Amino acid sequence: MNAPLAPFRTRDAQPGLPCPLDALDTPCLLLDEAHMDGNIARLRTRLAVSGVAFRPHLKTAKSWEISRRLMASPHGPATVSTLREAEELAARGVTDITYAVGIAPQKLPRVLALRRRGVDLTVLLDSVAQARAVAAASDPADPIPALIELDCDGHRSGVQPGDSQLLLAIAHALKPSARLRGVLVHAGESYEARGEEALAAAAEGERAAAVEAARILRDAGWICPVVSVGSTPTAFSARSYEGVTEVRAGVFVFFDLVQAGIGICAVDDIAASVLTTVIGHQRDKGWAIVDAGWTALSCDRGTAGQAVDQGYGLVCDAGGHPVGDLVVRGVNQEHGVVAPRSGNPADLPDLPVGTRLRILPSHACATVTQFDRYHVIGAGGEEVTAVWPRLMGW
Amino acid sequence: MNAPLAPFRTRDAQPGLPCPLDALDTPCLLLDEAHMDGNIARLRTRLAVSGVAFRPHLKTAKSWEISRRLMASPHGPATVSTLREAEELAARGVTDITYAVGIAPQKLPRVLALRRRGVDLTVLLDSVAQARAVAAASDPADPIPALIELDCDGHRSGVQPGDSQLLLAIAHALKPSARLRGVLVHAGESYEARGEEALAAAAEGERAAAVEAARILRDAGWICPVVSVGSTPTAFSARSYEGVTEVRAGVFVFFDLVQAGIGICAVDDIAASVLTTVIGHQRDKGWAIVDAGWTALSCDRGTAGQAVDQGYGLVCDAGGHPVGDLVVRGVNQEHGVVAPRSGNPADLPDLPVGTRLRILPSHACATVTQFDRYHVIGAGGEEVTAVWPRLMGW
Repeated sequence: MNAPLAPFRTRDAQPGLPCPLDALDTPCLLLDEAHMDGNIARLRTRLAVSGVAFRPHLKTAKSWEISRRLMASPHGPATVSTLREAEELAARGVTDITYAVGIAPQKLPRVLALRRRGVDLTVLLDSVAQARAVAAASDPADPIPALIELDCDGHRSGVQPGDSQLLLAIAHALKPSARLRGVLVHAGESYEARGEEALAAAAEGERAAAVEAARILRDAGWICPVVSVGSTPTAFSARSYEGVTEVRAGVFVFFDLVQAGIGICAVDDIAASVLTTVIGHQRDKGWAIVDAGWTALSCDRGTAGQAVDQGYGLVCDAGGHPVGDLVVRGVNQEHGVVAPRSGNPADLPDLPVGTRLRILPSHACATVTQFDRYHVIGAGGEEVTAVWPRLMGW
Repeated sequence: MNAPLAPFRTRDAQPGLPCPLDALDTPCLLLDEAHMDGNIARLRTRLAVSGVAFRPHLKTAKSWEISRRLMASPHGPATVSTLREAEELAARGVTDITYAVGIAPQKLPRVLALRRRGVDLTVLLDSVAQARAVAAASDPADPIPALIELDCDGHRSGVQPGDSQLLLAIAHALKPSARLRGVLVHAGESYEARGEEALAAAAEGERAAAVEAARILRDAGWICPVVSVGSTPTAFSARSYEGVTEVRAGVFVFFDLVQAGIGICAVDDIAASVLTTVIGHQRDKGWAIVDAGWTALSCDRGTAGQAVDQGYGLVCDAGGHPVGDLVVRGVNQEHGVVAPRSGNPADLPDLPVGTRLRILPSHACATVTQFDRYHVIGAGGEEVTAVWPRLMGW
């Protein structure tokens, strides 16, 4: 349900493009196009070598311009985390979409509406109750395809991969009018893995879970064409995709400090950052106060449990290069507290009021969610060459 | 800088109003109108008895409909945390606004534009550099008024209240063409106070800091008409407002679990909640999975350091009454993990797939920031009677 609202907004003027970073109001979201393109190319090349298909998760970017670069074709394939994303993509001609969050029965009318528009939308489920709801909602002439979600590591949702009783009961409950399309697994615990071997083991656990469940279903006579795996850490760590038909990943498009802490990227690969302005100091504490609080950076503290705690973000100069060894150590609604990691006030460099800084995000998905647009820094690295809208809401 | 964007949105149909909660897509933000009105009346009555003026902080609500209920008149007074809020309020006729975040020199053109539209917009600063920038930007025919921010408790920004040298240097730097309007303080550390006496002491510290700085300025010959204090905990705990001209507060309009933990409100007073739907279970762990993740609830863990840790929110039934003793123990982008506080899987009540729940927010400011509209539950408590847009961005 979305209301027809008179937009509660008045400002929408901007300097012409290209424009220098100095002309931007802060806080705002920057996207380094070259870094992003490099990240996409890296995963695309890796998967091409493995011979496995890529179904990019568009939940991180939520931008048509970025989705177009991530998808193999203008029609998909794509993974989304909300029906709103699916509806936006459908409006632009994408026809192959997996909605990778467990389906609520109340959402099936929107699923049906998308399918009637010609979108091959697949839903996800892990219970007989959901399977019955999907079967009951399906049009006999157009069965809704469903993937069974698997739990390979105790992270969140999903059927245990070896639970043949539940797998077959779900398949059976779908049968009357819906359609079993396959299995899907996400190794969410791979974010906690450290070191190449642990990451490879997480990837292998993800693969093995999917392949095992598919085998159980096939042995019982079910057709199971899709065997879908994916998370950013495992996508860059898997040594085999045997039995897997597609890989999903999302945050790699921007990368972030969490992924750098896991060892999947370098800090230099991070493509998204928040431009902010110094608005004050508490010099005896070694603090510079900036105008990026949790409304801009989010409250995500994803690196808190990692070897290097990056606070609410790592501080760079306006050119995007880390400056001093500064982190955002605290956030309020519209204030960020920048301080030396050392805790020594003498280590705070001279950052006069008005200085522009860029904050690399702890968790890019959470940070970019706070913004409705990307300011794209083009090839030269110094100017905004485009502004791309970013989808919000459900 | 805000770009002229073709909105990346397609859905804006809704059932007619009033509509039952069951007709809403989830997750969505609910606002209990009767609770909100009660919270507003409570603070208004308290301040009226004290004889002190109220300048509501509109940063929590960011809604014209709610702002109108908070302000004493259609023209103000108001406090905001972004210039975007000031611009929206100005477009609706509000003329008395304090922008209560330290001013960045780059934002002064927007301040001037608002003042030229007839808005008496006051800025905040705590350094000579900012004062010089404000003086340099001021139109001699229309000096920009400024408040000096004070630090009463080491929480964030501000001049030490007894630092007469810096206070007078800032006043002097403003003099050529800007205008000293007074002092402002926010006892941010009051969120850590526990018990009536500690809260009263935080309020008295806030008051004493403001009065002391005003005295120093006045003793040196400066006119200091405004002595502004405020935070939700101190607004409900102060025993004296002697020397204070106005009180600011924001989150009290909705209240939240943090404020309940401090003891400023009851859980029953909380007016904002997130409607969500059960999409799965891990029964052996005692988990129900819901479709409200951090995109809806935020990552704020404000009660983590309190006596009662409410996780990412307290779980209520669709009517808004706490159910079992369930909290949201984990969040991913679009998933929340609901579990008994006890940790005992047997304590999870029966919550079939499709069950609607309401999550009371840990920190209401952070949770409501994730949404672009309020679904207002009218007097009966069972139907949505209005949809109010909520401002996003800067």
